[in-house]
Amino acid sequence: MKLPVQFGDVLGAYERIKDRIRKTPVLTSRSLNELTGSQLFFKCENFQRAGAFKYRGANNALLLLTREEMQRGVLTHSSGNHAAALALASRRLGIRAFIVMPRNAPAIKKQAVLDFGAEVVECEPTLEAREKTAAAVQEKTGAVFIHPYNNRQVIAGQGTAALELLREVGELDAVFAPVGGGGLLSGTAVVTRYLNPGAEVFGCEPANADDAYRSFHAGKLIPVRNPDTIADGLRTSLAPITFEMIRKLVSDILLVSEEDIVIAMRLLWERLKIVVEPSGAVPFAAALRHKEKFRKKRVGIILSGGNVDLEKMPFGREGSG
Amino acid sequence: MKLPVQFGDVLGAYERIKDRIRKTPVLTSRSLNELTGSQLFFKCENFQRAGAFKYRGANNALLLLTREEMQRGVLTHSSGNHAAALALASRRLGIRAFIVMPRNAPAIKKQAVLDFGAEVVECEPTLEAREKTAAAVQEKTGAVFIHPYNNRQVIAGQGTAALELLREVGELDAVFAPVGGGGLLSGTAVVTRYLNPGAEVFGCEPANADDAYRSFHAGKLIPVRNPDTIADGLRTSLAPITFEMIRKLVSDILLVSEEDIVIAMRLLWERLKIVVEPSGAVPFAAALRHKEKFRKKRVGIILSGGNVDLEKMPFGREGSG
Repeated sequence: MKLPVQFGDVLGAYERIKDRIRKTPVLTSRSLNELTGSQLFFKCENFQRAGAFKYRGANNALLLLTREEMQRGVLTHSSGNHAAALALASRRLGIRAFIVMPRNAPAIKKQAVLDFGAEVVECEPTLEAREKTAAAVQEKTGAVFIHPYNNRQVIAGQGTAALELLREVGELDAVFAPVGGGGLLSGTAVVTRYLNPGAEVFGCEPANADDAYRSFHAGKLIPVRNPDTIADGLRTSLAPITFEMIRKLVSDILLVSEEDIVIAMRLLWERLKIVVEPSGAVPFAAALRHKEKFRKKRVGIILSGGNVDLEKMPFGREGSG
Repeated sequence: MKLPVQFGDVLGAYERIKDRIRKTPVLTSRSLNELTGSQLFFKCENFQRAGAFKYRGANNALLLLTREEMQRGVLTHSSGNHAAALALASRRLGIRAFIVMPRNAPAIKKQAVLDFGAEVVECEPTLEAREKTAAAVQEKTGAVFIHPYNNRQVIAGQGTAALELLREVGELDAVFAPVGGGGLLSGTAVVTRYLNPGAEVFGCEPANADDAYRSFHAGKLIPVRNPDTIADGLRTSLAPITFEMIRKLVSDILLVSEEDIVIAMRLLWERLKIVVEPSGAVPFAAALRHKEKFRKKRVGIILSGGNVDLEKMPFGREGSG
């Protein structure tokens, strides 16, 4: 059966967005290679505009709107990186953006969205309130809803990070991506399986938000409710499109503990000298946790984002230093 | 009168060390350009091996030793980035390195030097004890003393950072470098004045450790004793060689407050997603503090290093959020 997103969709997305995004660097580190026993290639989407890979998918989705849709504006509900990415990409294209955010979203995230010129609509902090508010905004404005991951154009855009990675470093044995809603993992998988069929793709997930792991092994969608993990970008659950992609293309889901995430994040900051958010550190946490399995392998690691509140650092408490 | 270090010395240093160092990236940021009103080019020596530009000068000095000197080993007294750089560069060249460190140096810094395979010799935390201990080690081992900045080969090596910067970005109006002992500033100045004579060079210094500012304006060396600044790499004072270079080549010394440094560091972490140590953030702090003077100018900023203890972050206290 034909997959919802094909390699050609990612190629098309790349042609569409490549002059609007940053071609992010791939970093390597002898000391982190020594720690894991594998050869790691870090694709640094923390350097992407608006601070995360989400800017790729948001641009692709916006650029595929009709002229008439662009005039109506766009809408999403998110308090995270998709909101900021959609806000910035919309501003650059002269499209109005409405972002539905829970009233208790961190002030810093709300400010980022406002700074990017979007209109924030607050709601109560429940999924029901979010959807209801979004529906009301949509009805009033006619804005086009851009789902953060259950959207084929968004997934195709997210796949362009792996496209750049594989084109730059050549054949890999494995590619690790974090999995929350599954958009990045789906896009990464379709690119990797096409360009580098000998490489396996792994989703990396906090054990405290293990819906992808459970869904993958049960063969049916099993969402989680309000998971408690420091990896705030991975609290979402898979959706029908991403689940279909992932069950067909991904080898397994690797789980990591909260402590693993903090240790991994700290090592990335200290050794690579880059700021990576907890969600972005999850694939490297998996590379550390499961290092026996990948000894001497060439492993691509997608560092998905770098948006972190410096006032709320996990160091000095769980500190493993 | 001929300067102690010439442009040709830097060119020679670059040929000598270029396969051993990282060619660090130059980053730009629209949002930081908007904040200052100038066009900033950040030369990221925080990504240099051992986490700072010091690796350049250490390699150049080591590669100029005679075979017989290499067999005797090298020695320095430093608790900071020069110690780590000399330790790592020595290990790669198979040279023994002795590092005299005060007993109260941060455990994390001592560990870095030990991890790089150097022999640490502890002493009391006074300048007198340091020099006495170093002399004793030198007498016993015959090791060659490599001064962190009052050394022509070290200065020539440090100048290679500006060489890479100017070759990559072309003509600039100004180049900012931090000034502690003055090795980086001296090397930066000799390269900039030669390659880009229209550009002015500025040393950037914490007001709490303003010996370079005072020496520059008095026309004679005025060292400071135990200055209190968060920029731990800039607590040292100019030495004869660096003072001579700086007074002849540098336009002025720009001072910044402790609060300026924390604000600048935070902006670099948040906007560029990179880890920069307080000393490394001082030139950008100067670009913020003195922004009227550099409006619409193309300014090179040398981010000198990224070695910071994540347990002792200045955020959440002085936080300007």
